[in-house]
Amino acid sequence: MRKMKAAIFVEPGRIVLDEKPVPDIGPLDALVRVTTTTICGTDVHILKGEYPVRKGLTIGHEPVGVIEKLGSAVKGYREGQRVVCGAITPSGYSNASLCGCHAQDGAGTAHGWKAIGGWKFGNTIDGCQAEYVLVPDAMANLAPIPDALSDEEVLMCPDIMSTGFAGAESGGIKIGDTVAVFAQGPIGLCSTVGARLMGATTIIVVETVPERIEVAQRLGADHVIDFRAHDPVAEIMRITDGRGVDVAIEALGIQQTFEACLRVLRPAGTLSSLGVYSTDLKIPLDAFSAGLGDSKIVTSLCPGGKERMRRLMSVISTGRANLKPLVTHRFKLDDIEAAYELFSHQRDGVLKVAISA
Amino acid sequence: MRKMKAAIFVEPGRIVLDEKPVPDIGPLDALVRVTTTTICGTDVHILKGEYPVRKGLTIGHEPVGVIEKLGSAVKGYREGQRVVCGAITPSGYSNASLCGCHAQDGAGTAHGWKAIGGWKFGNTIDGCQAEYVLVPDAMANLAPIPDALSDEEVLMCPDIMSTGFAGAESGGIKIGDTVAVFAQGPIGLCSTVGARLMGATTIIVVETVPERIEVAQRLGADHVIDFRAHDPVAEIMRITDGRGVDVAIEALGIQQTFEACLRVLRPAGTLSSLGVYSTDLKIPLDAFSAGLGDSKIVTSLCPGGKERMRRLMSVISTGRANLKPLVTHRFKLDDIEAAYELFSHQRDGVLKVAISA
Amino acid sequence: MRKMKAAIFVEPGRIVLDEKPVPDIGPLDALVRVTTTTICGTDVHILKGEYPVRKGLTIGHEPVGVIEKLGSAVKGYREGQRVVCGAITPSGYSNASLCGCHAQDGAGTAHGWKAIGGWKFGNTIDGCQAEYVLVPDAMANLAPIPDALSDEEVLMCPDIMSTGFAGAESGGIKIGDTVAVFAQGPIGLCSTVGARLMGATTIIVVETVPERIEVAQRLGADHVIDFRAHDPVAEIMRITDGRGVDVAIEALGIQQTFEACLRVLRPAGTLSSLGVYSTDLKIPLDAFSAGLGDSKIVTSLCPGGKERMRRLMSVISTGRANLKPLVTHRFKLDDIEAAYELFSHQRDGVLKVAISA
Amino acid sequence: MRKMKAAIFVEPGRIVLDEKPVPDIGPLDALVRVTTTTICGTDVHILKGEYPVRKGLTIGHEPVGVIEKLGSAVKGYREGQRVVCGAITPSGYSNASLCGCHAQDGAGTAHGWKAIGGWKFGNTIDGCQAEYVLVPDAMANLAPIPDALSDEEVLMCPDIMSTGFAGAESGGIKIGDTVAVFAQGPIGLCSTVGARLMGATTIIVVETVPERIEVAQRLGADHVIDFRAHDPVAEIMRITDGRGVDVAIEALGIQQTFEACLRVLRPAGTLSSLGVYSTDLKIPLDAFSAGLGDSKIVTSLCPGGKERMRRLMSVISTGRANLKPLVTHRFKLDDIEAAYELFSHQRDGVLKVAISA
Repeated sequence: MRKMKAAIFVEPGRIVLDEKPVPDIGPLDALVRVTTTTICGTDVHILKGEYPVRKGLTIGHEPVGVIEKLGSAVKGYREGQRVVCGAITPSGYSNASLCGCHAQDGAGTAHGWKAIGGWKFGNTIDGCQAEYVLVPDAMANLAPIPDALSDEEVLMCPDIMSTGFAGAESGGIKIGDTVAVFAQGPIGLCSTVGARLMGATTIIVVETVPERIEVAQRLGADHVIDFRAHDPVAEIMRITDGRGVDVAIEALGIQQTFEACLRVLRPAGTLSSLGVYSTDLKIPLDAFSAGLGDSKIVTSLCPGGKERMRRLMSVISTGRANLKPLVTHRFKLDDIEAAYELFSHQRDGVLKVAISA
Repeated sequence: MRKMKAAIFVEPGRIVLDEKPVPDIGPLDALVRVTTTTICGTDVHILKGEYPVRKGLTIGHEPVGVIEKLGSAVKGYREGQRVVCGAITPSGYSNASLCGCHAQDGAGTAHGWKAIGGWKFGNTIDGCQAEYVLVPDAMANLAPIPDALSDEEVLMCPDIMSTGFAGAESGGIKIGDTVAVFAQGPIGLCSTVGARLMGATTIIVVETVPERIEVAQRLGADHVIDFRAHDPVAEIMRITDGRGVDVAIEALGIQQTFEACLRVLRPAGTLSSLGVYSTDLKIPLDAFSAGLGDSKIVTSLCPGGKERMRRLMSVISTGRANLKPLVTHRFKLDDIEAAYELFSHQRDGVLKVAISA
Repeated sequence: MRKMKAAIFVEPGRIVLDEKPVPDIGPLDALVRVTTTTICGTDVHILKGEYPVRKGLTIGHEPVGVIEKLGSAVKGYREGQRVVCGAITPSGYSNASLCGCHAQDGAGTAHGWKAIGGWKFGNTIDGCQAEYVLVPDAMANLAPIPDALSDEEVLMCPDIMSTGFAGAESGGIKIGDTVAVFAQGPIGLCSTVGARLMGATTIIVVETVPERIEVAQRLGADHVIDFRAHDPVAEIMRITDGRGVDVAIEALGIQQTFEACLRVLRPAGTLSSLGVYSTDLKIPLDAFSAGLGDSKIVTSLCPGGKERMRRLMSVISTGRANLKPLVTHRFKLDDIEAAYELFSHQRDGVLKVAISA
Repeated sequence: MRKMKAAIFVEPGRIVLDEKPVPDIGPLDALVRVTTTTICGTDVHILKGEYPVRKGLTIGHEPVGVIEKLGSAVKGYREGQRVVCGAITPSGYSNASLCGCHAQDGAGTAHGWKAIGGWKFGNTIDGCQAEYVLVPDAMANLAPIPDALSDEEVLMCPDIMSTGFAGAESGGIKIGDTVAVFAQGPIGLCSTVGARLMGATTIIVVETVPERIEVAQRLGADHVIDFRAHDPVAEIMRITDGRGVDVAIEALGIQQTFEACLRVLRPAGTLSSLGVYSTDLKIPLDAFSAGLGDSKIVTSLCPGGKERMRRLMSVISTGRANLKPLVTHRFKLDDIEAAYELFSHQRDGVLKVAISA
């Protein structure tokens, strides 16, 4: 049995690089040799035991690689082809997926829906911080990478860019909108980019880390509010002359920013929430106009599937967005434990790390 | 100066019928002689002091009547014409109104938006529990009543039907959807009707008052859950084989039902909230899939304006919905204090009262 | 090699019942024993040579049956299970399908889109007017039939009901809309039902065959215009007091009705086209407001996939629509040539025929 | 009676600068002193007699100016304020306007809808190629100009930019879309800008005039096809690897480009039509997949109203688009006949002329 290296969850506080068998391949699967991957904030939640997964699971959901082997029923690809695959791997055939709700894919359930069911890699099946990853429902998920794009250039597509953009898309941003984005970590930065791409004309971001502020400005933020220096709600109401924003994007995952989003919305505005929360949330009565404000709260889990990947890559390849500043550090898979160490403590201005084979 | 009778807010606990001058009319206004009106749950909130309005205000926001006099700039109507007018009276010309957000009409503000700004009658201007009511922006708000319809037949249009239907509409109900409606007061009953009209094939309602359950069944509910006998969340999950509902409509305005709505949603479902809340709301982490469930929470304030009234009247006149069972009691304006007494205590199986001149 | 009976296209003018091998099954397929099927207007086009298919093809795209055998990679079903399958059988994994455009499924093309590509049965692969049919991408397409529903009750789901409803859905019908439906053949009748289910309050249908008019009235038409007695455009403008309709549904497929639809639209209205045309179409300048009327022309091919079938069956099982009147004649598969004879000449007031094994 | 200069339609072939009384003002109107205006392609149609208007009408629908006087019922503005006003001036209160269909405003009709009814200036009422223009329904239409913006910078807002952007908006462009724009006159150029602002990643434009091609490239076109050198349909299919475009925008108004748009659409694509046609249009059967391609044809008339103007000005003021290259020539109102001479013959690479007081 062939062996491979993989970053494995052992117990809260410990993800280690260890050996595992190279997975066997079913008829609908593809085996992908991972050439580049990265670590996500969610992986850090797993590391800390805040998001439970089974012991022994390989972590990671952002694979860039090369097709090593195709399942017997997989058509339309060839071995050796460079591919990227979304963090979310819809079946395509579940009731949820057929409705376009790929992230809530319930393949295997009686009714075809499962909350967060589309997120499989490093959650319910082995992930891609490894030498090889088995991609389920390969025909729905493998997206060929244009030759002109490097691994690193597409590395944000599987999750960060897809999720960040979804914050803008689910918000229904229109040309001329005013948008606030709370937090400018990698996902919030991509929401800023997404808001810009959709025609928002005033983008106000809230952040305090200087490196992140600097990148936000390069990527299209019009106003930056350092929440340590100013009250973001008051500032946003001042900037918008008391009107509030059309769309507020929550990209952190805590009560404070969720609530601030509600407070800065114009009537009939939309709170587009991306955060992974770890506590109950409170909706203050006044910030919600007692339920009469025609406001909306929408949440988005990372859209996946090969068509999503194709579209995101087209954003990169046409230069509509330059996300290179997001990759700040580089490691080999052999050194992934050090990468976790750096990333989980947000040392050295890290935004995202690239882990190469 | 001509005088008229009007139901006036005096102080918490006291709405009295008193005399007031018949209002003067501005160029864009219409003076309408009220032939029939009704009392809303919101009026009871006002009565109890839970929703503050200024002392001396005439209450009521559901006018059916006859045009007595038209403002000098009003065209397209004639005096003596029977009209109905929405509870929400948009200007038509504010930025909010031009965007179609009539209920958040901000005519008079610098930027044209105001939370709940479209609700003027019995809130920020004198209402219609009176012999006469002054209708602002008459050309946007006066809807002629077809001859074949009686006052009582259109009495639900200004608020109850418009709001209840909005619960279904904002939920984006599609043919084949499964929908839950929490509470079957007048508005919840209209949400049941609205859900049915939009093609929901399974409508589950939660209620305990026998009279309301009976009306709900006549108006189209497929399943009724008496929340005193059964846990609604468990029952709905049982009825839907563990899938949950596509849309859950909150038509009460308390934490318990808001939370139950979240718990019965399928992944990527929509909570359509109509309730007027009086406390902060809590979103439990688990019922919200930690923010990753692609769920939506949308709120709706009663859509207004003459086109909305026209459409709702067409539902009545074509027999698509029969809302006559909603009017359970009748009073003269002279006896409106008794009507408040009955309605505010929900005596005698009351759903809605008709108050005639 | 096992043989089966199948209705085979031989040449224009000849569809004959002949013998063929029972198909071999691939990993993603299911072999379904057809218990009931029907003949579609499109099959008549094929018979007449107006819609070309390859010689030797088995015709038919509306299968109701029992799973005989499942492909090796198919999960979630069991042999012996009663199932219905849409006329359109999306892959689920093509780019088109992942976008929700199942009918334009381009599985097998480089970019994943193919015009009309989702229609495979009796078009590009063998159809279901046979003892057995091979269902591709079975997990996306097999919809279990609730026990309470007979074969005949679900027989309209695969095409007629799905297409007819799509006419209403693509038109974006809202509560209170006025809708015209041109032609009340089986699909037009289902558009009438769909318009009713979505809340249209005035439904005007145009037809001349008495049996069809009678069924239209039972299914919800408010006004019927016999185009041999009256000019439909003038009549519709009269009925709508010169306003026109919000949505006009074309359910015949000729220039005359297409053009009439345009002429009866209110400004900013939607022409929802279902017809299969056989000539170029003309848009008259005046009926199109020279391109300035904010009008829309939308076309729909039958939505498919198991979730669509599930939803349509829920309409039947909850009694929201009773489509039994559509099945007017019954034949055994052995007599399918006689069924074609009757159906293609529209003899004896035929609407749809049921063909049973 | 005060007199003013105005460009008046005399007869086909003759628009002359003449004297007229300064208009009287009604309660809802505003009198605006026009500081800058321009000539539209539609004005040239009027000049040539191709679009009939009544003799003696003042032409022009793109006013930038200063409030001279406000009607007695107009609030929220002050005399002396700089304002821009859309080419389309919705009432706000008609049924159409209340539905958000401002361009089909039917104020004054029984049912509230009128094809092209929102276009009043220089069509049904006196326009703005004059010293003064009377703005109807001023509160819905006057948009204050930010101090930082010059007249010329906002001169494209009333029509060109609003219409061009509408081509992109009505097409429903999404991030990652491929879009074709046929013709790069001023409106087509603005569609290119709009497509870019909405996130299209591949924008293919078809044009032959070198000056226009050059501006298109500056404004965001990725590919330019000179239709005199190449067949646009073949080229677009080549560029898109046979897939076709998600959205094709027609910005010329002739059969050839309308048809080409249909031919380059991917299945389920959208033809967004802006052209003012002068002949019937033909939809070729093959380019329409016989009605089965899930394709859409949508038309847009220039969106108007003060909120639209506010949003468009925000695009300019934030530098999201630089439309300065569109104004190629400048004239005084006194020389407007010369401006018509130049513009109507498209001499000297003219795109748009600025006419100042």
